[in-house]
Amino acid sequence: MSVAEEFEVANAEYAASFSRGDLLLPLKRKVAIVACMDARLDSARALGLEEGDAYVIRNAGGRAADALRSIIISQQLLGTREIVIVHHTDCRMLTFTDEMIRGKLRSDLGQNADYIAFLPFGDFQQSVLDDIKWLKESLLVLDVPITGFLYDVGTGKIVRVEDNV
Amino acid sequence: MSVAEEFEVANAEYAASFSRGDLLLPLKRKVAIVACMDARLDSARALGLEEGDAYVIRNAGGRAADALRSIIISQQLLGTREIVIVHHTDCRMLTFTDEMIRGKLRSDLGQNADYIAFLPFGDFQQSVLDDIKWLKESLLVLDVPITGFLYDVGTGKIVRVEDNV
Repeated sequence: MSVAEEFEVANAEYAASFSRGDLLLPLKRKVAIVACMDARLDSARALGLEEGDAYVIRNAGGRAADALRSIIISQQLLGTREIVIVHHTDCRMLTFTDEMIRGKLRSDLGQNADYIAFLPFGDFQQSVLDDIKWLKESLLVLDVPITGFLYDVGTGKIVRVEDNV
Repeated sequence: MSVAEEFEVANAEYAASFSRGDLLLPLKRKVAIVACMDARLDSARALGLEEGDAYVIRNAGGRAADALRSIIISQQLLGTREIVIVHHTDCRMLTFTDEMIRGKLRSDLGQNADYIAFLPFGDFQQSVLDDIKWLKESLLVLDVPITGFLYDVGTGKIVRVEDNV
């Protein structure tokens, strides 16, 4: 059975007890979450989200720059007025560089990916602060409250990351 | 209380019963999911995901082109070997055009976003097929099984989207 087929089986059970078919946009909580795609992070369970609560944007590292298109759509068309960033401990974004992954694509696939910024980082608290700053400076992003959290994959806890400088 | 503070309260409860701190990469299920950010879709519950199961990439519309950076990282560095795309009914990506949102950013914020492709679409089954085709043709993406689903926000059900042409 492929993973896609396993998803179909699991979904049949989910749909059998589904009771949120009345959910309408706009949202109760006007928030866009930007979180890492990491398999160990279940952003809904970890943040107490119910269906209908929040737009959830996820990518490698939970990087703001790569979420810009979705953030703009969520603010301009869907009415979000708060942003929450979630990065996490033991993130694989700390283990490579642009040069490394571009070199691997060149040698394994014969392809040039030098035009792609893979956005790795060197510190998972600094990356949260960098992304808050990046969003605050972006002229395409509304001036809304932005909170950054670091999720601990070992304990399931989030801790707020604050700039104490 | 801001939404971020509500998340902290909910997370304290989650962390109190957290028992998955032993999760190690690589994954049990070597899959990357590309799903829409829509608030009504809880990708983990709808697909039966446990913490540690799958990389979850989410953006406005669940568009493959905007997930490329994350898909490459998941394949080249994290070992995913299957892709599952999830778009959904009543998607807001059907309600605007690039020209509309660029015009709104120009008039409301005085900013030029003409360089951003917002990737709206006209049909949420065709968008799944388009994204499968786009990934299959991308030379930076490995030749792996790709399955596309349409999630029904009214019933909670996923239905496989297949190219019957």
